Amino acid sequence: MTQLEMARKGEISSQMAAVARAEGLEVEVIRERIVRGTLVISANTGHTGLVACGIGEGLSTKVNANIGTSSDFGDIVSELEKLRVAVDAGADTVMDLSTGGDIPAVRRAILAAATCPIGTVPVYQAAIEAINRHGAIVKMTADDIFGAIEDHARDGVDFITVHCGVTQSAIARLKRQGRVTDVVSRGGAFMVGWMLHNECENPLYEQFDRLLDIAREYDVTLSLGDGMRPGSLADATDRTQIEELLTLGELVQRSWDAGVQVMVEGPGHIPLDQIETNVRLQKTICKGAPFYVLGPLVTDIAAGYDHITSAIGGAIAAMAGADFLCYVTPSEHLAIPDVDDVREGVIAARIAAHAADIVKGVKGAAERDRRMAQARKKLDWDEQSRLSLDPPRFNSVRKQRASSGSACSMCGQYCAMDLVGKYLGVNATRC
Amino acid sequence: MTQLEMARKGEISSQMAAVARAEGLEVEVIRERIVRGTLVISANTGHTGLVACGIGEGLSTKVNANIGTSSDFGDIVSELEKLRVAVDAGADTVMDLSTGGDIPAVRRAILAAATCPIGTVPVYQAAIEAINRHGAIVKMTADDIFGAIEDHARDGVDFITVHCGVTQSAIARLKRQGRVTDVVSRGGAFMVGWMLHNECENPLYEQFDRLLDIAREYDVTLSLGDGMRPGSLADATDRTQIEELLTLGELVQRSWDAGVQVMVEGPGHIPLDQIETNVRLQKTICKGAPFYVLGPLVTDIAAGYDHITSAIGGAIAAMAGADFLCYVTPSEHLAIPDVDDVREGVIAARIAAHAADIVKGVKGAAERDRRMAQARKKLDWDEQSRLSLDPPRFNSVRKQRASSGSACSMCGQYCAMDLVGKYLGVNATRC
Repeated sequence: MTQLEMARKGEISSQMAAVARAEGLEVEVIRERIVRGTLVISANTGHTGLVACGIGEGLSTKVNANIGTSSDFGDIVSELEKLRVAVDAGADTVMDLSTGGDIPAVRRAILAAATCPIGTVPVYQAAIEAINRHGAIVKMTADDIFGAIEDHARDGVDFITVHCGVTQSAIARLKRQGRVTDVVSRGGAFMVGWMLHNECENPLYEQFDRLLDIAREYDVTLSLGDGMRPGSLADATDRTQIEELLTLGELVQRSWDAGVQVMVEGPGHIPLDQIETNVRLQKTICKGAPFYVLGPLVTDIAAGYDHITSAIGGAIAAMAGADFLCYVTPSEHLAIPDVDDVREGVIAARIAAHAADIVKGVKGAAERDRRMAQARKKLDWDEQSRLSLDPPRFNSVRKQRASSGSACSMCGQYCAMDLVGKYLGVNATRC
Repeated sequence: MTQLEMARKGEISSQMAAVARAEGLEVEVIRERIVRGTLVISANTGHTGLVACGIGEGLSTKVNANIGTSSDFGDIVSELEKLRVAVDAGADTVMDLSTGGDIPAVRRAILAAATCPIGTVPVYQAAIEAINRHGAIVKMTADDIFGAIEDHARDGVDFITVHCGVTQSAIARLKRQGRVTDVVSRGGAFMVGWMLHNECENPLYEQFDRLLDIAREYDVTLSLGDGMRPGSLADATDRTQIEELLTLGELVQRSWDAGVQVMVEGPGHIPLDQIETNVRLQKTICKGAPFYVLGPLVTDIAAGYDHITSAIGGAIAAMAGADFLCYVTPSEHLAIPDVDDVREGVIAARIAAHAADIVKGVKGAAERDRRMAQARKKLDWDEQSRLSLDPPRFNSVRKQRASSGSACSMCGQYCAMDLVGKYLGVNATRC
């Protein structure tokens, strides 16, 4: 049984209990939100050692880190190191997006090592195997795609991105409309190329029930991919993107009807003033299904710093209700990330998630900031370090240019905190 | 005459013409906004070599970088290097906040080297000289403060932060209310300590006309400081902060009445969902005077990454109407910034400013992103580098792990851009 099926029968799974404990909420609240589909616990029944993690309504905003090989770089050793660094930095989930080397071996090694939920995009493997066996992605068959999905599910993958909304109708709309950057989703591009060449409907859409059967059997959470997401600000919130969203809304309902857990992916590149609209639209169209956004990036021109552009967009998206942020690293648009990029990407996304959790009213979020502020007022540097998002970074920056006094070297002997404390009455710090 | 006095007489100064050219606007529009006080051109009549820069309504969002010595670190050589790096990275203005070493000598060296507007906080010098001469900040006199202001104005400083809103009434309100972090503004703390010890009103408030006389003589733009700004999320948008803002609103009107250009400073540490309110409140209370925000930082726990927390807040503030962003560096709350911190801080603030300019409709902002997107679609790496915010960073990240193909090493031979181009008709990329 899936977590959704159990929740509907009124059963409390060990995973629901674990999520309730982790979030400081009543388990009945968790169960009820799973029933409504606004919360998922992505936990493949075959992923041994998994520590359950909830994503959705009322929970802390979660952060995903993408790792994986490409045709140019990466192997099992490098990807296991990225997994370790991502989790250490605070990633809640990791996606293995490998497209190079021995893809199944990398995936299995990551699954064996990971206690957090692991996601994949099975069509990458299907497409690349089609190239290796038949010489071209377009020679991939529907059975190849579903075979890869079944492989991933059997291996224990907890959630899979499936680009079910890339339909012939959406492609036709894209052609009528025109775009600056067409399709930038890799999985979306595989499907578009295949569909145009073969003049067929998308098997992931046409045979969606076949997908639901696999997902239900292993309790794989479907992450409905946005293959038509905008790849530039100029393409944001266009008709092609919104048509795909409408399709995903229908597929959310069909997933729920089949007892399958589901979330919905969103863009991408969006101007600052369209982010809230995108989140509200998704939440309405998809009846409150958890929203998983990539970024969003709020400008196209900052390659080298896209962890920052996406932290800006991610904070606004999460404040508006997005539940799950996919990190973006400083090397986005330029190169495959290394371990330092992975760490920077996770921290930037966690900043966005935490800033939003404060205003979402997530339990404990604002309290942590209050305690940090109190420690800062007391010039208690050990406590500040302990409460900080990245204590090693906190300590190393502080030590590089340490002050000779009790404050920091920015203000040296003229620290405002220090100075005002002497003159203000005790009442002023009673908070 | 000040720029404001000239504008009122219908005169077009060379500075107004330069700003109009730089922003791609009609000079009459610039003049009219100076008359209304919604736009300032901060240009001390004695700052030779200055290239005029406008701040305010309808202009691109400007970025300030704070540099300067502390009692622990820094000298003329290090601060001139920070000036160079800040301007290279795209800072529009620089503030010299020196509190260590030979403060006047550092300031004069920076002014001689700088073609951008330079700001200072004269009370730092007055307070530190009081310590050196009399042994304590509280022994500073009103004449010491105004003497320092006159020194800075005579040296050619273009804008000065003056904490005129730190009144006895605001301090009493702070005491009644209580705060987690009391006063975190260094200049504000100097005034509070002095006022409580001496049981006097703030001379910068009580003798505001004396300040106006100096400002008018040299056309120094007043930047009304927020000495009572919140230093933590818990203190944001509290009664003390807002009382100070009300006072600043009155002083804006008095500045305009005296023909003096003025802008208003704002926080600080603010939760995501209070930023827009803060900007709208300032714009209303201060009748559209340019708003200069520090950050705002959207969480207290990310020391080591406060360039990111402030880029998030700065983007939202600028979208809501803030005109001028003060950068925050990765070493904020921990240490005085070095040149690398200065560079990272400026870039992060520029990302925030540019992302906001796109949605503010600032001339050319969205167009640059569109051209970047077109270059990305064409896999034209030279053009992408040229259009990027930081070409050296763009090139170094790309080269570290270069792809063997025409795309980047993230997707290697499976680049979506590359793939879809082959299958979609030409119409799809007609934009």
